[in-house]
Amino acid sequence: MPQGQPSTVPDDGLTTRERRNRALVVVHTGQMKGKSTAAFGLALRAWNQGWPIGVFQFVKSAKWKVGEEHALRVLGSSGEGGTVAWHKMGEGWSWTRKAGSDEDHAANALEGWEQVKRDLAAETYRFYVLDEFTYPMTWGWVDVDDVVRTLRDRPGSQHVVITGRDADPRLIEVADLVLETTKVKHPMDAGQKGQRGIEW
Amino acid sequence: MPQGQPSTVPDDGLTTRERRNRALVVVHTGQMKGKSTAAFGLALRAWNQGWPIGVFQFVKSAKWKVGEEHALRVLGSSGEGGTVAWHKMGEGWSWTRKAGSDEDHAANALEGWEQVKRDLAAETYRFYVLDEFTYPMTWGWVDVDDVVRTLRDRPGSQHVVITGRDADPRLIEVADLVLETTKVKHPMDAGQKGQRGIEW
Repeated sequence: MPQGQPSTVPDDGLTTRERRNRALVVVHTGQMKGKSTAAFGLALRAWNQGWPIGVFQFVKSAKWKVGEEHALRVLGSSGEGGTVAWHKMGEGWSWTRKAGSDEDHAANALEGWEQVKRDLAAETYRFYVLDEFTYPMTWGWVDVDDVVRTLRDRPGSQHVVITGRDADPRLIEVADLVLETTKVKHPMDAGQKGQRGIEW
Repeated sequence: MPQGQPSTVPDDGLTTRERRNRALVVVHTGQMKGKSTAAFGLALRAWNQGWPIGVFQFVKSAKWKVGEEHALRVLGSSGEGGTVAWHKMGEGWSWTRKAGSDEDHAANALEGWEQVKRDLAAETYRFYVLDEFTYPMTWGWVDVDDVVRTLRDRPGSQHVVITGRDADPRLIEVADLVLETTKVKHPMDAGQKGQRGIEW
């Protein structure tokens, strides 16, 4: 964990405290696992601060995050820490009535993003996880320039964590913190498949 | 998330199911943040499986993981999922009476490792987080060959996740999964210091 002095002090007119508390856009990218797990690990800190947390899963399969979802839901309703709202594209977004009707993935992804925009404008949450959100951008379902503009101009103090492979350079540009997880060694190389408690 | 067929099938006499459920040694290393957050994110999946979780923090400062500790403690006592036992070197290990007496860091680190060995032998937990455990190995406080031998010969199905920079090559060798998180871009580069909810 890096400590001490930042390498440069920008001439941005902010005090150290203002700069310290500026909300972040965090991107967890790279080819390997660990992107979402790190994002949800970060959500534990946000929860501990008592911040309202909004999770938006931009994937069809809900299988892979069941552990995180269960844990965050239990935490969110524990009476301690922050609240947790968990929205899944794969089973129909929770603010719509048509659960399971995700036949048009592009329209569904865009619907999710439009809700994120509304929530950012209303400052509904203080910590957002947009899980696997790079994919709808890559596939052209969500306009990257709209994402960049929305993130850059968002009001208040709202942290946004985005995960997924192949983050667009424009997203990297607007992000404050970009982390990439790489594999040094993986059990699949030794013929081992995924297993419960580890992969999901 | 990698899916599908493993790249090789080893001649180890195990069935696919046996190989799939072989417990893992996971090392999260690298120079950047995200190592511990990913490890605690993984712990959410273990918790969801109902597995007993043992966390051993091999650091003096308890400041940095307060969010994760609070969240895991609430989860562990929620009546759902697995139990959580959280042990800290920095405030005196929980199985000793001398809280705060961590003047001899080397002896304290070794004491923590000896307890991990006893727990592995007794199969006390099914999922272990040895947080920042690479450091006492690097500093010679804990014998790397002893760690490697203990991990390799541990009984039953016990997953062990180790975090910290500069993982010893012998630890990499015995590990099944090694992940490294690298910085693409960091707010400290733009003169921003750490902040609550993000760094701790």
